[in-house]
Amino acid sequence: MKDRLLLMIPGPIEFTPEVMRAMGMPTTSHIAPNFIEVFGQVLERLREVFLCPDGQPFVVAGSGTLAMDMAAANLVEPGDRALVVNTGVFGDRFAAILERYGAEVTQVQAPVVGEVPALEEVEATLRTADYKLMTITHVDTSTGVAADVKALAELGRRYGALVVVDGVCAVAGEEMRQQEWGIDIALTASQKAIGVPPGLALLVAGPRAMETFRQRKTPVTNYYADWSNWLPIMEAYEARRVAYFGTPPVNLIWALNVSLGQILGEGMETRFERHRRLSQAMKAAVRAMGLEQVPRRPEIGAHTLTAPYFPEGIDRSVLARIRAAGVIVAGGLHPAIKDRYFRIGHMGAVSPSDILTTVGAIERGLIEAGYDLKPGLGLTAAQAVLAEG
Amino acid sequence: MKDRLLLMIPGPIEFTPEVMRAMGMPTTSHIAPNFIEVFGQVLERLREVFLCPDGQPFVVAGSGTLAMDMAAANLVEPGDRALVVNTGVFGDRFAAILERYGAEVTQVQAPVVGEVPALEEVEATLRTADYKLMTITHVDTSTGVAADVKALAELGRRYGALVVVDGVCAVAGEEMRQQEWGIDIALTASQKAIGVPPGLALLVAGPRAMETFRQRKTPVTNYYADWSNWLPIMEAYEARRVAYFGTPPVNLIWALNVSLGQILGEGMETRFERHRRLSQAMKAAVRAMGLEQVPRRPEIGAHTLTAPYFPEGIDRSVLARIRAAGVIVAGGLHPAIKDRYFRIGHMGAVSPSDILTTVGAIERGLIEAGYDLKPGLGLTAAQAVLAEG
Repeated sequence: MKDRLLLMIPGPIEFTPEVMRAMGMPTTSHIAPNFIEVFGQVLERLREVFLCPDGQPFVVAGSGTLAMDMAAANLVEPGDRALVVNTGVFGDRFAAILERYGAEVTQVQAPVVGEVPALEEVEATLRTADYKLMTITHVDTSTGVAADVKALAELGRRYGALVVVDGVCAVAGEEMRQQEWGIDIALTASQKAIGVPPGLALLVAGPRAMETFRQRKTPVTNYYADWSNWLPIMEAYEARRVAYFGTPPVNLIWALNVSLGQILGEGMETRFERHRRLSQAMKAAVRAMGLEQVPRRPEIGAHTLTAPYFPEGIDRSVLARIRAAGVIVAGGLHPAIKDRYFRIGHMGAVSPSDILTTVGAIERGLIEAGYDLKPGLGLTAAQAVLAEG
Repeated sequence: MKDRLLLMIPGPIEFTPEVMRAMGMPTTSHIAPNFIEVFGQVLERLREVFLCPDGQPFVVAGSGTLAMDMAAANLVEPGDRALVVNTGVFGDRFAAILERYGAEVTQVQAPVVGEVPALEEVEATLRTADYKLMTITHVDTSTGVAADVKALAELGRRYGALVVVDGVCAVAGEEMRQQEWGIDIALTASQKAIGVPPGLALLVAGPRAMETFRQRKTPVTNYYADWSNWLPIMEAYEARRVAYFGTPPVNLIWALNVSLGQILGEGMETRFERHRRLSQAMKAAVRAMGLEQVPRRPEIGAHTLTAPYFPEGIDRSVLARIRAAGVIVAGGLHPAIKDRYFRIGHMGAVSPSDILTTVGAIERGLIEAGYDLKPGLGLTAAQAVLAEG
């Protein structure tokens, strides 16, 4: 149904055949012994993938926005101060969500699109008031900018703020060590580097976040997102017991267990390194083709996607040509530059061959659109990085 | 992975091979032209299945509880009065959800488990105060009791209340004519008679409900459930345009389109009649085997499930024997009678053969557990009903 096009957008990504077989297998009862075991394993494995041995995982039917909503709805009480480290569209969204639950939100903005706020500015803001929590978008899918989560989390903790990381375009691709780095909540969606079709909100909450939740003075004003409903369910399945709140999305959870098994089979360090390497190859190709990137400096470029500007004289109609050449990439998302750039996702089960296929299709698309490019320039640059490994 | 056991619980149900193939097919981009067409069709077809030509459908990743939550979060403002017509566990849940959003909830309870509240009592309550909305559980999955939705909806409208029908165990199985019966919101979950694996909350809101939402004076205190976020998305996909809020659960929506096509291919009238007939067959078998049912009168028994009490001398351990005989049925859910009854789901693509297979397994399970039953008694009674058609 995709006519064998390669899907290289920042989610949904290409999923492994084993994951897709789990999606299509006959649905079991949510209280069947084999499903209880699968759900229990999923919860255990999420702790390993998030590198958070003391965390409490939540797996709930919904989109990544539900995971953000869960973090805000369960932690925030009216009047709480929240600091949003904003690197793009998803920082704006977290601010809107936090405000919905009564938070007084202060945003530290990147000076320009494609930059990150300076650590000094974040620290200066943390000094001005008593922030209950701070949110960081690990990778903003709209800009391809990666925040320095480790340094920001350290700052947040030093000033007593709970640290919430929106890892939607990052978890299981970008290096993220939730417990070691002092992150109180990390969250993602299934269809990104976790490698499962869309439909699951995933979140791991550390002990400080759970304690803050337990100490709430007001009820959570979002019934579906309320951890009071879900915590007993997560605890039961992990103890290989049944409990009912809502019917879990059986096939998606089965598929998630397959994918988490594949992720842990590769190993988190190897996986981080593979994402780094493949990202470097893609970015080397993009540079060799003469394209600028939205992230203004290599150090702040995500490893899960690349966001190149169209070169002079080329517009978004080139995306159809790239598609005709066999690869689907995504258009722009950030309102300020929407029509000037495109986005290439490379996360999850992505391989060196996928990178070359994609670079090849971009080269041919650009040439067909009239861009003056020597065929193979991007491929050679990518291959040079791939061959190093 | 189910060892070819037949899954006859009140959801997840047995899904058709075509639906499962859609689940397992390669995931497309959520902005791919073929997916836009599929999502657009889904929205149009939901109107036909809900029999609500002027309704606004919402399709969101989540469980059936999210659909209930959406109805409450978007309609209720603090201090609003709500009337819950309670026929079991899911009436309790709707009351809890409504209260979360500040409603003053009055419940009209069934006099005993297995009964429905009298229409006169509901009307007397509606007379006492100005209710903004009234909720009805069409089929309470915990008791197998079906409410008289048509009569209750008429009462609700007469007294000016918005009528909200929790159709989770009913829509596309029980007769429900949303627009003709004056139902303002009807909702369900994918894994019931709609015939798609769990993970989708489905809701159709009529014009009065949408108008009430637009006239809100206070913001919706649940970000993820807020129609302000989802309405533009539903409108865009139906107009075959792209809009982004959260990544839609692509495979589930593709599977939903396949199932809705199968449902409309059968036709709603034929489908209602098939559910009625198969339910009568199952209930005839249950009676012939000497088992009492939770619904106290045949007229209030659901057509989507049957809830028999265990006969004298038999306890829930018989469920394992029924399973060993090839069919999975569900245990009790209502706290007051939890260990005294079981539940048989028969909705969606269920066939006469499934009914016979299930009755056969129950007969053998009961006999093995020591129940004095002449083999074939239940089967003969079921077959008599099936042969009438």
